[in-house]
Amino acid sequence: MYALGAHLLVELKDCNAAMLRSLEEVRDALVSAAREAKATIVDISFHEFSPFGISGMVVIAESHLSIHTWPEYGYAAVDIFTCGDVIKPEAAAAYLIERFESKSPSIVEMKRGILSHDNVKRPHKCTESHLQVA
Amino acid sequence: MYALGAHLLVELKDCNAAMLRSLEEVRDALVSAAREAKATIVDISFHEFSPFGISGMVVIAESHLSIHTWPEYGYAAVDIFTCGDVIKPEAAAAYLIERFESKSPSIVEMKRGILSHDNVKRPHKCTESHLQVA
Repeated sequence: MYALGAHLLVELKDCNAAMLRSLEEVRDALVSAAREAKATIVDISFHEFSPFGISGMVVIAESHLSIHTWPEYGYAAVDIFTCGDVIKPEAAAAYLIERFESKSPSIVEMKRGILSHDNVKRPHKCTESHLQVA
Repeated sequence: MYALGAHLLVELKDCNAAMLRSLEEVRDALVSAAREAKATIVDISFHEFSPFGISGMVVIAESHLSIHTWPEYGYAAVDIFTCGDVIKPEAAAAYLIERFESKSPSIVEMKRGILSHDNVKRPHKCTESHLQVA
């Protein structure tokens, strides 16, 4: 069986709420997590909402990381969607659990793109020779 | 029980491959899907990879939509993460299934941020009075 990607849905509960309220902190955490995972960062987009709450996305060559924070609950929803063999998504998840001091984290992993027809790997953007943004 | 958000993980298989290869087509599809769902678009980021493959994210006030395409397989992975009662995530999913002509779609839904302590809704950015980007 071959899946094109792995998607970690990370629930960060009981976090350090002050960190979840800070745009700079959240952005730095996600970018650092992407680097921990050895990802190739393509674009970064972070937004702060009123009265509070941060949403952010890090587009990587290997797919994306995203975060949405609810500081009033000490909760953040993180997604780490990756493809390829070089990248280490669990390293990104572990980094964020520690960075946000989550006392009650959980992770659901879903395989994305399980293709049944021939199980032959075809060259795609996640292979090293294709890590090039057009 | 109260969940802060709903996350639809949409697998679009057996799509129109030519559409999945086009940056303009994919970007327009996601933006249109966000509008179908009555979302408030905050930011848009789309990238084309070499030799093919599109990655895109639409940050909305209600969280995000994302897509990663594998035209060589006629496959795209879509995520529709929303919060609040006004937005219609299934409308976005149905729109994309039809737009990309997926003959074999599937959807997994995950509730994000199920908080057990007091089940009291607190004001957050997804309520109408807070739909304001800082």
